[in-house]
Amino acid sequence: MSSLARLIASGAVQSRTELANRTGLARSTIGVHLDRLEASGLIREAGLAAASGPGRPARCLGLSPEAGLVLVGDLSVHTARVVVADLTQRLLAQQTYPIRIADGPEDVLAGLEQAWRHLLLEIDADPHQVRTVAVGLPGPVDHSTGTPVRPPLMPGWDGYPVGQVLGERFGCPALVDNDVNMMALGEARALPMTQYPLVFIKVSTGIGSGIIGAAGDLHYGADGAAGDIGHIQVPDSDHVACRCGNRGCLEAVASASSMIRALRDPDADLGTPPGEFTTAELEALVARIAQGDTETTRLVKDAATVLGQLVASLVNVLNPARIVLGGALAAASDDMLAGVRSGVYSRALPLATRNLTLSYSVLGPVCGVVGGVVSAIEHVLSPEGLTVLRS
Amino acid sequence: MSSLARLIASGAVQSRTELANRTGLARSTIGVHLDRLEASGLIREAGLAAASGPGRPARCLGLSPEAGLVLVGDLSVHTARVVVADLTQRLLAQQTYPIRIADGPEDVLAGLEQAWRHLLLEIDADPHQVRTVAVGLPGPVDHSTGTPVRPPLMPGWDGYPVGQVLGERFGCPALVDNDVNMMALGEARALPMTQYPLVFIKVSTGIGSGIIGAAGDLHYGADGAAGDIGHIQVPDSDHVACRCGNRGCLEAVASASSMIRALRDPDADLGTPPGEFTTAELEALVARIAQGDTETTRLVKDAATVLGQLVASLVNVLNPARIVLGGALAAASDDMLAGVRSGVYSRALPLATRNLTLSYSVLGPVCGVVGGVVSAIEHVLSPEGLTVLRS
Repeated sequence: MSSLARLIASGAVQSRTELANRTGLARSTIGVHLDRLEASGLIREAGLAAASGPGRPARCLGLSPEAGLVLVGDLSVHTARVVVADLTQRLLAQQTYPIRIADGPEDVLAGLEQAWRHLLLEIDADPHQVRTVAVGLPGPVDHSTGTPVRPPLMPGWDGYPVGQVLGERFGCPALVDNDVNMMALGEARALPMTQYPLVFIKVSTGIGSGIIGAAGDLHYGADGAAGDIGHIQVPDSDHVACRCGNRGCLEAVASASSMIRALRDPDADLGTPPGEFTTAELEALVARIAQGDTETTRLVKDAATVLGQLVASLVNVLNPARIVLGGALAAASDDMLAGVRSGVYSRALPLATRNLTLSYSVLGPVCGVVGGVVSAIEHVLSPEGLTVLRS
Repeated sequence: MSSLARLIASGAVQSRTELANRTGLARSTIGVHLDRLEASGLIREAGLAAASGPGRPARCLGLSPEAGLVLVGDLSVHTARVVVADLTQRLLAQQTYPIRIADGPEDVLAGLEQAWRHLLLEIDADPHQVRTVAVGLPGPVDHSTGTPVRPPLMPGWDGYPVGQVLGERFGCPALVDNDVNMMALGEARALPMTQYPLVFIKVSTGIGSGIIGAAGDLHYGADGAAGDIGHIQVPDSDHVACRCGNRGCLEAVASASSMIRALRDPDADLGTPPGEFTTAELEALVARIAQGDTETTRLVKDAATVLGQLVASLVNVLNPARIVLGGALAAASDDMLAGVRSGVYSRALPLATRNLTLSYSVLGPVCGVVGGVVSAIEHVLSPEGLTVLRS
């Protein structure tokens, strides 16, 4: 049934017949669900689709822009990107503002609520029109409960009921997920299914990935921890401490945190984890990479070599059709992508790379919020979302 | 629809109502499919299931033992295990015999056909009763075409149309897959769905894995190469050549091939790949491991350390509910499992290991043929399999 909601949300399906053909579900099953969506005002069937065969012309399926709104927040360690969208995926209002995730959940979520309410005012919308909110966080999340689980970069957030708190404030379901999972979903829905399985890798303050399976579903794993590649041990790095408490993690040697430390002090003690840094320092790092500063370029190339070896292993394990590189560091220059490509093509199995596409995100910085919008809309249109709506 | 065939094949579902509840498919959809299965003589609805509510008692779903047979072959580098089973998964006849996969496809497949025909004679069955054959091979397979793709341990098999050849000999569909994928499927169907995602790791002549997703489907990847962990580069092994042409692969340092070479000649040149060895040598290695021979135990422990680090990475990427260790080397002593456990619990994310089970195969050596039987039966009962049957 999840494929049904996904197809309706995509706006790409014209008729009940097409839905039946593409999901394999009975027309009666589809009919019952569409009738409920129409009764709830979420979709309308207007106009006539071009008849592709005998019989009466099919009615066209359309999502109602007036049927409600979704609120999405994509939170990274230093930045929040928030949007209001309608059910046709149109972004009606958006704002990006600096945060410090380490300020803890009360402060950060109060700021997020304020930002959303401000955007709703801006477009003259009523908070009661909000059908679902979706938030991405830079750490492991138990998405079934909407709760971060021991997130290394988010002091004070462990076990905090983010989903419950936001759901109560807006009186609607609240989806909470890892930020990279949301990015992977956004990217995946912007591409044809021939690009699945898809792995989205974010390289920024931390390093993480989101995995989309052949059928288009996020691979969460047994505990919602799948894709957490930042804490995989990489070769020759046992002397480098990571914020997670382990040593030799990918994130400890190839993230913005490690680069900023190296630029601050080339002789820094690698036996203690890198400390916090400011948004200004991250922006300065990205600027130095973009300018091609020699020392910074060397750091990026070293990081790309380590990342490329690990991505080659990922390719052997998952054999994805597409690997997408995103995040502030990946976007700053071509060195990261070039290094990863080199690692993958020299080390991964030929069979697993013959059809592989390795590229930047087609959506860029809005990838995460688009993923949040898509997951919120797919939830609103699902049988589960409908149940919540009616209770 | 694949979940429908899977549930019917499992024999665990009693009624149409239960099928509708568990698949989310409309009763009409299920009815159409079951009517076709019944018309083809594949299932019978006999007796009455215990009524669980008002209305007329549901009819019981049963697979017909008389409805046909499946032939399965699980081929490793040195051994073929072949079975004949009916659609209720009962193994009617089986045989295990030595092979040399390097003899090439014509010889090995001729032997396989002979073995199957011999077993059919033994149980007095007609080859026309065979509905589907399924074969597992120790290398990468394009399962959509039934063709091995550059398999390092199988000289002469690259691109050979195994599925087509076997299908023509028995006049029925022939499924060809990587042997470890078949094992993963067999193991998964013997366990409850709470044990998904599941990763099956085989440690024998080579090393490979099969991945079962949360919904119970095999994760094939874009080219059918997913799970090929044997050629991932492991630390500190750049001086060890692998049969695949690369250096430092897991398989080059932690498989039976590498151990047999080390026992033959502790000063062997690691810069050339390990050569072939005989079944007798593999059996002698397994016996020495089982006897606790000091030198061999050290080799197993070293291999387990390397494997454990890699499995820790797999746990971070996939967050499986269960990891299963199978194959001749894993089964020979507890050192392999203990070493892998130690690597995983010291390195993988706590969130990803809190519900993880790491164990031996519950099915043991028959895992692969059971997986072949299950996949053949699920194919026979699928809409696709029915189409073939009628053409």
